[in-house]
Amino acid sequence: MQTLKNSKTTTKSELPIEEVLESLQKENARLSSLLNVAQSLSSVMDIDELLFKIMDVVRQQLHADRCTVFLVDRERNELWSKVAQGLQNEIRFPLSKGIAGHVARTGEVLNIKDAYDDARFNPEVDKKTGYKTHNLLTMPMRNKQNEIIGVFQVLNKASGPFDHEDEELLNAISSIAASAIENAQLYDELHKSFVSFMETLSTTLDARDYITSGHSRRVTLYAVQVARLMKLPKEEVELIRYSALLHDIGKLGIPEIVLFKNKKLTQEEYAIIKRHAALSRSILRKIHFQHHLKSIPEIAASHHEKVDGSGYPLGLKGDEIPLGGKILAVCDVFDALTSRRQYKDRMDIVEVVDILDHETGTAFEPYVVYQFKNITLNVLIEILEFGHQGEFSEADLSLLRQFTLKDLVRIYREGPDNEEEQNALETFQFYYQRKYKGD
Amino acid sequence: MQTLKNSKTTTKSELPIEEVLESLQKENARLSSLLNVAQSLSSVMDIDELLFKIMDVVRQQLHADRCTVFLVDRERNELWSKVAQGLQNEIRFPLSKGIAGHVARTGEVLNIKDAYDDARFNPEVDKKTGYKTHNLLTMPMRNKQNEIIGVFQVLNKASGPFDHEDEELLNAISSIAASAIENAQLYDELHKSFVSFMETLSTTLDARDYITSGHSRRVTLYAVQVARLMKLPKEEVELIRYSALLHDIGKLGIPEIVLFKNKKLTQEEYAIIKRHAALSRSILRKIHFQHHLKSIPEIAASHHEKVDGSGYPLGLKGDEIPLGGKILAVCDVFDALTSRRQYKDRMDIVEVVDILDHETGTAFEPYVVYQFKNITLNVLIEILEFGHQGEFSEADLSLLRQFTLKDLVRIYREGPDNEEEQNALETFQFYYQRKYKGD
Repeated sequence: MQTLKNSKTTTKSELPIEEVLESLQKENARLSSLLNVAQSLSSVMDIDELLFKIMDVVRQQLHADRCTVFLVDRERNELWSKVAQGLQNEIRFPLSKGIAGHVARTGEVLNIKDAYDDARFNPEVDKKTGYKTHNLLTMPMRNKQNEIIGVFQVLNKASGPFDHEDEELLNAISSIAASAIENAQLYDELHKSFVSFMETLSTTLDARDYITSGHSRRVTLYAVQVARLMKLPKEEVELIRYSALLHDIGKLGIPEIVLFKNKKLTQEEYAIIKRHAALSRSILRKIHFQHHLKSIPEIAASHHEKVDGSGYPLGLKGDEIPLGGKILAVCDVFDALTSRRQYKDRMDIVEVVDILDHETGTAFEPYVVYQFKNITLNVLIEILEFGHQGEFSEADLSLLRQFTLKDLVRIYREGPDNEEEQNALETFQFYYQRKYKGD
Repeated sequence: MQTLKNSKTTTKSELPIEEVLESLQKENARLSSLLNVAQSLSSVMDIDELLFKIMDVVRQQLHADRCTVFLVDRERNELWSKVAQGLQNEIRFPLSKGIAGHVARTGEVLNIKDAYDDARFNPEVDKKTGYKTHNLLTMPMRNKQNEIIGVFQVLNKASGPFDHEDEELLNAISSIAASAIENAQLYDELHKSFVSFMETLSTTLDARDYITSGHSRRVTLYAVQVARLMKLPKEEVELIRYSALLHDIGKLGIPEIVLFKNKKLTQEEYAIIKRHAALSRSILRKIHFQHHLKSIPEIAASHHEKVDGSGYPLGLKGDEIPLGGKILAVCDVFDALTSRRQYKDRMDIVEVVDILDHETGTAFEPYVVYQFKNITLNVLIEILEFGHQGEFSEADLSLLRQFTLKDLVRIYREGPDNEEEQNALETFQFYYQRKYKGD
């Protein structure tokens, strides 16, 4: 088991007292900053944020120009790292490659004083990136069980090569970082379990019937778009996402013979189906949600409420309906209207928007409909086609990215102003109306 | 925002150098042990374990006899603490009460040098516990947002009352502890979400039909008992628990009209129902489980496999069937055989065990059946009655606790050896055969 280096509190009598004093002060400063590092890392549970913070801390503490933390992925035998800039948000390479791979495999510390004078350094990487490496310190990161879970690579110390003190400092930071990373990974894995469980359940429930297949997932994608366009805080977007995934869970309590009847429903059967909204609430209330997710049951249960109070299950009016419920109401109806039905084309998009407009202020909250129409056409078409096998051309998507649903309806109603608008209209229609085997 | 106390690295010139040296050494020792505290707390994510560790660390660092950490429960306006000994595992009291309550409300630090000479101290607590308090230090614990999330109460420093240095040290430990506690609570809350989600789903699925109502929950309770009797490690018990909760999730993919048919099934219908085991696998495989839970899909899918290879879906033989699957197989059949059916009594318990015995070695793994029979009768009857409204007498439960299912069957077959066995038999029968309204 690894422990942090203890301070040397015994005075070495053969040294002049000034030197002892100086070394104590140095040790003091070192411990003090390590303690601050420990404190600052312990407050971050988001793995991405944590990795950036660690790289930043190491860079500062070692007075270096750059620091990268690579983590070992044992399942794939790879090293990977987060990168802040660029299109991709991580880089990956096999454990067998590079200096970092060597250090991860052997546990050796490599302190390379002059990169271009050292055979172990591969100048190809610099050539690709345009960065000039002078000196670099590469060190394994070990957890409490002494397993190598990652690698630090620190580049270009301003005042010449890294020395023994740098190695000791990085080693101490390393064991603090390893604990923080393992905690954050544990949390991240559990979070993924929870979310993928909700997604799988929601998909499985919808898939029981052709008509609803993919419905909750699409409603979720629309709802998240609207929430983001409203600039809601991250936690509220998460709340709306999960409420959307689970809004129809109450259908588990409705007999399939009624739920999936293809003929016209009797009034009694319709009344039974309407129970699903209240059932969503009572099922979801049994789940112990985290604090910021406590209102999932209320939001999920209110997706059939209408702002004029004529909805169900509670007949809530206006602001009595939670915002999330108002967002779900619009997304739920939009998805129902635009879904492919067996042997039937989608409803014309202008007709769909006409219905939304007609119900705005009675069923729907105007601001929600307003923001729904601000969804760009590339996003809209990707959600509409979610779960189908069709592909998209990148060129088409970047054309569509320039127009919103609101624009589309204007172009339809008033005719295109220019060739680009004409193209966008036709491109949207192509995807919106394309057919699949079995449709 | 709170930060840790920095070391004083500047030498105060007016002090003699020996004193400076001594104070630096002291500060060094303090920082060093704080760093060790930070490191040791950061490696614990289990909230109960963490709280015990914090109390232990504080007790040692402050050379005190006892330390308690109380946490603030804002929803219930209470303080609560874990206790290691005794029947209950936590104590709770209103925020309005006691010295700890005062400190939690006001944020004041109370350093009481002589408890019995101080009006703020209530000697009633000592009277109840038989403990004699001499001196005590009570201090709020604040998180990064400076909110009071708990209270430290440290009792009886051996070498006289707590001094200013003790207060400073506790204050530094406090901010380290607060981070660790908040992380562990975050994890704990998410874990509760995940587990309660699985439980709710499993209960909701079973509740669709009277015959299966409560089935998965009972199978889970039996399976956990068997796993514990086998002394499986904690993580494997958890794996078996969740596999049991989810073993029938594949029934979501079977049309209700077949699944809930009360007449005899045709061969074709039976074949459709048998698909549920493989469907459990394919649904569960879509979920991103944590590393130690990765085999949930395989275990859940194998609850109808038989050791002689005649089961389904894969016809696995002997050791090809995961242990969890073998445990589920026995528990699943036991629950089916002992369930109350509408208008029908439970099957005689000896007859149930006869069936288990008869299938041991063909359908069931002998060691699993052996351990199943080691379940004590109090536990057995509590699981059998899970979900019913019936109550238990404590006296009955402690009588039943002395016998296992194996004992019960012997007493049945060979007759009771003494009055206690006779009583146990009758008591078991009373609960096993009691009737409820609607049965």
